[in-house]
Amino acid sequence: MLANMNDLDLWTELAAQLRVDSIRSSSAAGSGHPTSSMSAADLMAVLMTRHLRYDFDRPRDPNNDHLIFSKGHASPLLYAIFKAAGAISDEEMLTFREEGSRLEGHPTPLLPWVDVATGSLGQGLPIGVGVALAGRQLDRLPYHVWCLCGDSEMAEGSIWEAFEAASFHSLDNLTAIVDVNRLGQTGETMYGWNLDIYAARARAFGWHAIEVNGHDPLAIDAAYNEAMATRGRPTVILARTEKGHGVAAVANKNGFHGKPLADPEAAIAELGGVRHLTATVAKPDADAPPHQFPVTGHLTLPAYEVGSKEATRRAYGDALAALGNARGDVVALDGEVGNSTYSEVFAAAQPERFFQVYIAEQQLVAMAIGFQVRGWRPFAATFAAFLSRAYDFVRMAAVSRANIALAGSHAGVSIGEDGPSQMALEDIASLRAVFGSTVLYPCDANQAAALVALMPDLPGIVYLRTTREKTPVIYPAGESFPIGGSRVVRQTDADQVTLVGAGITLHEAMAAAEMLAGEGIAARVIDCYSIKPIDAATLHTAGRETGALISVEDHWPEGGLGDAVLEVFAADRLRPPIVKLAVRRMPGSATPAEQLSLAGIDAAAIAETARNLVRETRS
Amino acid sequence: MLANMNDLDLWTELAAQLRVDSIRSSSAAGSGHPTSSMSAADLMAVLMTRHLRYDFDRPRDPNNDHLIFSKGHASPLLYAIFKAAGAISDEEMLTFREEGSRLEGHPTPLLPWVDVATGSLGQGLPIGVGVALAGRQLDRLPYHVWCLCGDSEMAEGSIWEAFEAASFHSLDNLTAIVDVNRLGQTGETMYGWNLDIYAARARAFGWHAIEVNGHDPLAIDAAYNEAMATRGRPTVILARTEKGHGVAAVANKNGFHGKPLADPEAAIAELGGVRHLTATVAKPDADAPPHQFPVTGHLTLPAYEVGSKEATRRAYGDALAALGNARGDVVALDGEVGNSTYSEVFAAAQPERFFQVYIAEQQLVAMAIGFQVRGWRPFAATFAAFLSRAYDFVRMAAVSRANIALAGSHAGVSIGEDGPSQMALEDIASLRAVFGSTVLYPCDANQAAALVALMPDLPGIVYLRTTREKTPVIYPAGESFPIGGSRVVRQTDADQVTLVGAGITLHEAMAAAEMLAGEGIAARVIDCYSIKPIDAATLHTAGRETGALISVEDHWPEGGLGDAVLEVFAADRLRPPIVKLAVRRMPGSATPAEQLSLAGIDAAAIAETARNLVRETRS
Repeated sequence: MLANMNDLDLWTELAAQLRVDSIRSSSAAGSGHPTSSMSAADLMAVLMTRHLRYDFDRPRDPNNDHLIFSKGHASPLLYAIFKAAGAISDEEMLTFREEGSRLEGHPTPLLPWVDVATGSLGQGLPIGVGVALAGRQLDRLPYHVWCLCGDSEMAEGSIWEAFEAASFHSLDNLTAIVDVNRLGQTGETMYGWNLDIYAARARAFGWHAIEVNGHDPLAIDAAYNEAMATRGRPTVILARTEKGHGVAAVANKNGFHGKPLADPEAAIAELGGVRHLTATVAKPDADAPPHQFPVTGHLTLPAYEVGSKEATRRAYGDALAALGNARGDVVALDGEVGNSTYSEVFAAAQPERFFQVYIAEQQLVAMAIGFQVRGWRPFAATFAAFLSRAYDFVRMAAVSRANIALAGSHAGVSIGEDGPSQMALEDIASLRAVFGSTVLYPCDANQAAALVALMPDLPGIVYLRTTREKTPVIYPAGESFPIGGSRVVRQTDADQVTLVGAGITLHEAMAAAEMLAGEGIAARVIDCYSIKPIDAATLHTAGRETGALISVEDHWPEGGLGDAVLEVFAADRLRPPIVKLAVRRMPGSATPAEQLSLAGIDAAAIAETARNLVRETRS
Repeated sequence: MLANMNDLDLWTELAAQLRVDSIRSSSAAGSGHPTSSMSAADLMAVLMTRHLRYDFDRPRDPNNDHLIFSKGHASPLLYAIFKAAGAISDEEMLTFREEGSRLEGHPTPLLPWVDVATGSLGQGLPIGVGVALAGRQLDRLPYHVWCLCGDSEMAEGSIWEAFEAASFHSLDNLTAIVDVNRLGQTGETMYGWNLDIYAARARAFGWHAIEVNGHDPLAIDAAYNEAMATRGRPTVILARTEKGHGVAAVANKNGFHGKPLADPEAAIAELGGVRHLTATVAKPDADAPPHQFPVTGHLTLPAYEVGSKEATRRAYGDALAALGNARGDVVALDGEVGNSTYSEVFAAAQPERFFQVYIAEQQLVAMAIGFQVRGWRPFAATFAAFLSRAYDFVRMAAVSRANIALAGSHAGVSIGEDGPSQMALEDIASLRAVFGSTVLYPCDANQAAALVALMPDLPGIVYLRTTREKTPVIYPAGESFPIGGSRVVRQTDADQVTLVGAGITLHEAMAAAEMLAGEGIAARVIDCYSIKPIDAATLHTAGRETGALISVEDHWPEGGLGDAVLEVFAADRLRPPIVKLAVRRMPGSATPAEQLSLAGIDAAAIAETARNLVRETRS
């Protein structure tokens, strides 16, 4: 369908307004990316007036389309769209980048019309894949996901993980719009305006690709129509544009990335002056509620017999399946290691809510972020070591105020023979250093199950570290393990030292305490299953009562359990000496028991450290 | 050229030996990946006897080809190759995965014929791109880089970053061999044996692609010949193989990933029994030394005037350029932000040793790792926040015992208006938690320059954190800042509190000390420019002499400077209270000064904390 002349006038005027407003807001701020906004103004003018279905008064309407700026630095354009849609005032638009304004330098969900924070390139599209997949398989609603990408970010591998996942899942409810303005931050991109290269790649990855002049509204409109009519695969619209289009001083010129215009008034005049058009954005056609999966409504967690042995990773899978049976909002994803993480238990129980993401950990986490945009409670699992592949996505998920659960299995040297490439030894450090995160590390199967049951209702990034080896079940099923709590698993009135463990080291600490007891040394043992937040009160009490602490962790010395313990006592005037046992040499291959011994974190090493510490304390 | 019949016999026998040995070693170990090794045995038998140029007696010969197992879990096959080449004995081969053996579960450079550790999928090929690019542009030697990839890892975005970079640089000295055995860890890959899909993608990414039966030695040989004859672009050989090929019990069957064979003796009999062939691997044809770049041989670091202001990121670029002029082994890489990181200064001075990696941070770090394989000293720079994209590569670089310098600019909230997506607030935590790493954070331009000059000679992962804002130059040019040192920038005999800063917070601490002095409170100020290792002696002295410490960092509270300070005092019986000031709320947009104030890490907040602490100490 061709647009009529009135549409063309509207689009031309609206695009000019979006450009002018991008210049105005960035000039008012004294920083920002007007030229990267101006290139995509025509693309967005046509989209918002003709193809986007969005009720700006009801951003939570489940039938709204989703518009994600993967090129988050084009925030001036996004905010100009919000103004044109009547969602924000011109006045608010001009608070861009001011302290206290919700119009931040890069978009965040502080704005109700923004799904996720962007600004780290290559993330919006993979997250958009998650939103679109939720639409297809979870919500089962006809909303469409539109992602505006930059050409520079096409170099990110995560973009190709997204291309792969989207075509694998036949997501024809996803359209990527690539603003090929040729110029990156420092110069021309690898391929400049060679749209054919991008199109060939997109097609090889199973997408429908359309090349278009990104400053021709009629051609753009036709491309969107073609995208909407394409069935069975996603569409990418590759738009040839000029960075800074419409203002001769900067149009298609290098050296103007991320800079306000030198002469904004002249530029605005060149664009025909300030306008205050309000564009009509169509509301969603549909009014259906999201799909709900039939569930039992009551949770029956797995129970493991005290004294038996089971791996916490197995308990993760069992408990997650139980959770999935009880509530319909829980979904699981795995990076093609579901028989190691035990996501496979959930997959067998709830195949419609399980997502195989293959060996693509960035897409794994991005898909989880996309699912939670739509209110689902995703659990994403892989080896803890390989979650490091998605660290930038986790960092940004916190900026997105996203609620996601991450489960990392095979943590630490205790995995044994596979060697250091498979051992997470930095996961506690990296995931503690995520804003608002929760870090959990169960030592037995019942505890793991209880913690899994808490995870979907916790805000932010919640990380569960699980162990490859089977560990003794020490807690009866059904006990409660609150976040921020701990368990004192061994205690007398005469304790001379406290051993602080978590996960696999808790068992080593218990064995050490037993050895020490035989020598007349009473050791308290604390299970810090909640590493962030940590149970400061119990640790303080132990410090006061026992006079010395030893923390033991299957992790590098930096940023892990030991540092969390030190933090508790940081500002104290009087406090016990704290000895941190951790992995201080690069492991190789060895049995799990040899690994713990070589790392100096097994029962013998703990007992020896305790003996010395008690001896010093007595002296 | 067709191989003669004798070759075919040799290849068949050798491939059988490689399979048998893969079974033998993994059975001896009780773990490992024999079936993933068996699929690629024919590919490797032909490669090592006909195409590889490698002197196993001289692994450091600069003209050796490079063979990288991107699918590191096929380590039994690699070690079987080493045995067949006469590099290791049959006896040593059977120490696979034993404690103390250099034949670890996944390959590491403890073996002199292994360039880099693999085992985290999708890393070998991007690193191979770095090695091949070094061959072309740095060493200028005709060695060839062969990467054995798995089909599962083709889902990793990093693989496509590698495909892109390799074709962009026309690396016809690189051949990827993809062992398409159809089966991943838990089931079939996305595309099974559909080689055409992989070939189409590879071609769209600018590679020459060859599809071949991976169990037909003559066809494999022809494919290698075609790869070697292809000019101007890299070649990928897509080999259709069977996982577990040659043993009916496991061949092409799901459920046998990462497991020793149930009946190894029967399997070995089925393969014709144990053999001890020694294969002749051709030595390199060439005997040329690596290219050396003409340099001045003496280092003239930039000098900044005390009292002026300059950004440490600018000093990074200036000093790196000076270093590049002085020594020829220093090379620089950047993730298309060279005018922000100031890599552009080096690029202008040494264009032949500068590498633009565009917005692909995994390839950025992988390329650096590849360069250091060949003895070059790479400096890879981007925004510190975006180094998080490559965290798994950095983690694995430590397992590789790689020597690389990473420079992260725009750290912390002090970048100002751009907002949290661009702010590294977890970089110190994540990079401290890398085995053997060094973490440096200069506060002024002369200090930054001095530290840059030390970096190329430091072992391991060396991270330099730089600041966007210009900071006052407080140290004269030419002073020495040893690794593990600190500077006491303000001190009296009557100090009542110590302020510990680094980078931008050092200046806030100095300003706070000045404010406090006006109120009669004497504060010592320490510049902890070396965060790992940290100067424990100076901190201990300060603790003893001043009785209270405040650490101040532009970073989340977890794992940063404050935790490094706490660690120093951990085991002390008597120690001062330590208050950690850090960023504890999610920042938005604001000016740099507003950001520091809102985060409670500016001079006013430090002074207020000091006042309270001194008051408590007195009471």
